[in-house]
Amino acid sequence: MYKINENYLKLQGSYLFSNIAKKVALFKEANPDKDVISLGIGDVTQPLAPAVIKALHKAVDEMAQAETFRGYAPDLGYEFLRSAIRDNDYKARGVDIDLDEIFISDGAKSDSGNIGDIFAENNRIAVCDPVYPVYVDTNVMAGRTGEYIAEKESWSNVIYMPCTKGNNFAPQIPKETPDIIYLCFPNNPTGSTITKSQLQEWVDYANKVGAVIIYDAAYEAYISEENVPHSIYECDGAKTCAIELRSFSKNAGFTGTRLGFTVVPKELESNGTKLNALWARRHGTKFNGAPYIIQRAGEAVYSEDGKAQTKQQVAYYMNNAKIIIEGLKSAGFSVSGGVNAPYVWLETPEGMTSWDFFDYLLNNANIVGTPGSGFGPSGEGYFRLTAFGTHENTLKAIDRIKAL
Amino acid sequence: MYKINENYLKLQGSYLFSNIAKKVALFKEANPDKDVISLGIGDVTQPLAPAVIKALHKAVDEMAQAETFRGYAPDLGYEFLRSAIRDNDYKARGVDIDLDEIFISDGAKSDSGNIGDIFAENNRIAVCDPVYPVYVDTNVMAGRTGEYIAEKESWSNVIYMPCTKGNNFAPQIPKETPDIIYLCFPNNPTGSTITKSQLQEWVDYANKVGAVIIYDAAYEAYISEENVPHSIYECDGAKTCAIELRSFSKNAGFTGTRLGFTVVPKELESNGTKLNALWARRHGTKFNGAPYIIQRAGEAVYSEDGKAQTKQQVAYYMNNAKIIIEGLKSAGFSVSGGVNAPYVWLETPEGMTSWDFFDYLLNNANIVGTPGSGFGPSGEGYFRLTAFGTHENTLKAIDRIKAL
Repeated sequence: MYKINENYLKLQGSYLFSNIAKKVALFKEANPDKDVISLGIGDVTQPLAPAVIKALHKAVDEMAQAETFRGYAPDLGYEFLRSAIRDNDYKARGVDIDLDEIFISDGAKSDSGNIGDIFAENNRIAVCDPVYPVYVDTNVMAGRTGEYIAEKESWSNVIYMPCTKGNNFAPQIPKETPDIIYLCFPNNPTGSTITKSQLQEWVDYANKVGAVIIYDAAYEAYISEENVPHSIYECDGAKTCAIELRSFSKNAGFTGTRLGFTVVPKELESNGTKLNALWARRHGTKFNGAPYIIQRAGEAVYSEDGKAQTKQQVAYYMNNAKIIIEGLKSAGFSVSGGVNAPYVWLETPEGMTSWDFFDYLLNNANIVGTPGSGFGPSGEGYFRLTAFGTHENTLKAIDRIKAL
Repeated sequence: MYKINENYLKLQGSYLFSNIAKKVALFKEANPDKDVISLGIGDVTQPLAPAVIKALHKAVDEMAQAETFRGYAPDLGYEFLRSAIRDNDYKARGVDIDLDEIFISDGAKSDSGNIGDIFAENNRIAVCDPVYPVYVDTNVMAGRTGEYIAEKESWSNVIYMPCTKGNNFAPQIPKETPDIIYLCFPNNPTGSTITKSQLQEWVDYANKVGAVIIYDAAYEAYISEENVPHSIYECDGAKTCAIELRSFSKNAGFTGTRLGFTVVPKELESNGTKLNALWARRHGTKFNGAPYIIQRAGEAVYSEDGKAQTKQQVAYYMNNAKIIIEGLKSAGFSVSGGVNAPYVWLETPEGMTSWDFFDYLLNNANIVGTPGSGFGPSGEGYFRLTAFGTHENTLKAIDRIKAL
């Protein structure tokens, strides 16, 4: 008789955003006349940039002719895309990354879940609290998290690094030593980030204790301040301790187009085994590449037109962030984030839990946000609004909140 | 100190097709003047069908306008595609599959590797021998296969079901009882298949012993004979024991476009846990959907034009298969497959191993095929040629083989 992976039975409830979607669907069903605005899930609203559209059409036309048709892609992804990444995301920032250290994928969510495959079950993970749920849930599935302790809303074998107002939403080196450290900066959900010297401390620590950092830089395009690193490899020694995840979802609006990549430096070794070789094997065996036409779309993001156009998109969303921050402040809320990230993190009004505030906002202002507690126990009392709505909806939403 | 997944260190050499690619690259480098024809990897050569191209362009245009732009897809995939699948692949064959039993993915390779996630490590797998390497390698990674026994070219904890000329390339119920049974019909690599009544025996067996069948039907579009099942759910009782994997790679030439799906019936339960719920959780947590434009391309495969055009593509390749079979037979080879599948399986000339014959063909006829032993020990002495080349190259290749 076959046996299921019982770790799945430990998973708590459903995935956060599925829960929210269900609540919203019920509300809309009961209130078909209400104009619900979502500043909840981190999904973009701006169409793909013209340069990307042009590249997509061109690639589609190539697929229509036998001479230019493309079948299976190279295991790591097409070189035209990996070169563009190497040159623009790394070389331009003074970082040398080799082409065979870049693995093209269908997005950072898949990569952040799948990267666990190359590690043993008996690694202890450390995560920020609050945290993007995928890091924890995929480790629950892999059996690394121990048991769920309901009263603490946390897992017995996970090291939580609280990020709260008290530490300016920056995690501190934990007392217990982790094996795998998940860091995401600019941060989802808090919208905060850390400086290069702060990140250097993490790199030094990881190298010292033999930990590996999974560095999620999905939001790097939103960085507006000078001393904030765009890549962990800007720090000395990061190549011997860090894997970096990148996404096209937020810098170029690819949430429904699906493209990302992971960098695994060849210097990253465990007892002589290169993690690059392990990930190459995983990538080549359990994945078959992102579609050719989507890889061409990714290449176009790095064209001169593409860079200018996607920069405008980012500016559009960051203007929304500014509107949200200023609006909330003037309405008396305590807010953070939104300067180097498309997320604004606000404290719920006194006495309200995150889910109370979710219901309150949905029922009274018809606005969907994300309860901070959905991201971890230290998220309780906080609430996330995203800047990914349209300008018009963002203005309308803030007016409604001010009027509450 | 973090620990790697040491199962990866057990993996034998590199992935078969990577090995072949390296050998071919070396040959081409040394012989730049030679016209190498590949009938090796199962990659298609015909461009995407006009109906698919039209749908792609239309979807790209939608992504260019805010009003029609699409972000994150629904977890299971868009309903327009799942409906088309339900109606065309199942209802039309008298099989009732619910929409929430269909999970859209980026392809059957990913699914066949990832499906293992929902099962415990201590399941014993059974595979046909020869077999598509991904089934075995992904189970090696998951720690299910025991140790590699070099002299047997096999894994200590895997149940092998030899498929040779002796049993007409149809696996027989194994003596030892497996927990998870991988079946692929029409078969890769042998090109053989089994009848509906033969498959019914497997379904009955799996239900009797409590095994789950992972049924890979990636090549069903190539079935030309009446009594061969297109879906395992054509068999009574399959919904309580089988997961079916499907692909758009071979029926519609999507090898570089990436689309597939997996069916997990809600009746499939282990001690009250629905595997459908487990896979839904995995799918929603470690994957973020196939691109919208690709899902629209998939939908177009089921349009009237799409069906007619892709049927033509399949006929084109099956004509190649016929050319290969007849040519090889007239050259004195013993061949099988190629009637319900795009693969022709031939016996190597006496005394030659599969890799000997690979080198012989590459060096003397400049043709790339796939050594049977790369698919498992019972593949030794066999060789796979695929019908996915162009008509012209297929003719040329067969002429060269005849001239040897």
